[in-house]
Amino acid sequence: MFRFPASIQKLIEQFQRLPGVGPKTAERLVFFVLRQPKSFLSEFADALQHVHDAVTHCSVCHTISEKDPCTICADTTRDATSLCVVEDAHDLAAIESTNEFHGKYHVLNGLLSPIHGITPDKLTIDSLVAKVQKEPIKEIILGLNPDPEGEATINYIYNLLNPLGIKITRLAKGLPMGSDIEYADEITLTNSLTNRREI
Amino acid sequence: MFRFPASIQKLIEQFQRLPGVGPKTAERLVFFVLRQPKSFLSEFADALQHVHDAVTHCSVCHTISEKDPCTICADTTRDATSLCVVEDAHDLAAIESTNEFHGKYHVLNGLLSPIHGITPDKLTIDSLVAKVQKEPIKEIILGLNPDPEGEATINYIYNLLNPLGIKITRLAKGLPMGSDIEYADEITLTNSLTNRREI
Repeated sequence: MFRFPASIQKLIEQFQRLPGVGPKTAERLVFFVLRQPKSFLSEFADALQHVHDAVTHCSVCHTISEKDPCTICADTTRDATSLCVVEDAHDLAAIESTNEFHGKYHVLNGLLSPIHGITPDKLTIDSLVAKVQKEPIKEIILGLNPDPEGEATINYIYNLLNPLGIKITRLAKGLPMGSDIEYADEITLTNSLTNRREI
Repeated sequence: MFRFPASIQKLIEQFQRLPGVGPKTAERLVFFVLRQPKSFLSEFADALQHVHDAVTHCSVCHTISEKDPCTICADTTRDATSLCVVEDAHDLAAIESTNEFHGKYHVLNGLLSPIHGITPDKLTIDSLVAKVQKEPIKEIILGLNPDPEGEATINYIYNLLNPLGIKITRLAKGLPMGSDIEYADEITLTNSLTNRREI
């Protein structure tokens, strides 16, 4: 069987490690890359290497960061009494982009999922409990996905932190903006009814 | 607005340069990469850098290769009287995988597409004409896509090479294996009728 040159074959294999990229897509991406000016390859390689060298985890909130503590944890103007627990840096960025939350974060780096081997000790839950016992936190917002893994994690953390007597909240569930009641699923519609509010 | 650390932002931008990858997908890919062991990043970077350093074009057939001439051009057991003209190394690999063709290749590195600025001088057509005039070639197989760009390129090359009195063929057009006549488009069905053969 005909094989591409070894270096190209190796690059195809690397692309195949990305989620949603099969053998055909990986080939297509590599051949796209090969059609670009040669600097494309070295710029891409440098960007990967730079992330490898520069990125670490913040020892306070566990988010990925180039500094330790990260810029949010180091920001003394932020409200240290309000702590938002998120799955990862991605969700943190999404909440930051609302400009609605001015407290601090705690990044779990995952959600509980025993079938995938993600048990509580794989997440930063111990560090969260220690932080809550030590710092003057008044409210914990559980900013986790409303899906099975998120719900399991919310329940687990709630049971751990509730005895400490701190206010624990979670994000509202209801109809997303721009949606159509006609096409909303039953659970979303049930949530939007149960949680209805006075205008 | 919240921004990811600079090195991560830069990697997201690199992923966005790939075809079919928008800002959200690029973020998703980068966060996938960050969840992998750190060696993933350096292995990926090394694979890109290696392609950058090792891959060149074969000066005979113009395919991408680590050697010049490439393994196929250097293979003296292959039939030098039969030349298959293909768009790129990708199509070359597809034809090689049939094990039906034992001649040599000529890679155009593109197809004519004036609206995209791809005029004959951007392809390796001059080199093809020179090769045909110099070498003992008996048949030229135009192994190009049956789409507008491919048809234009076939016509252009046919008009150039026909005066040289060499046999010029193109790949058969008809029904693909496993297809359903009911769902075949009119042009494919017309081709399969026009080119019907005795059993």
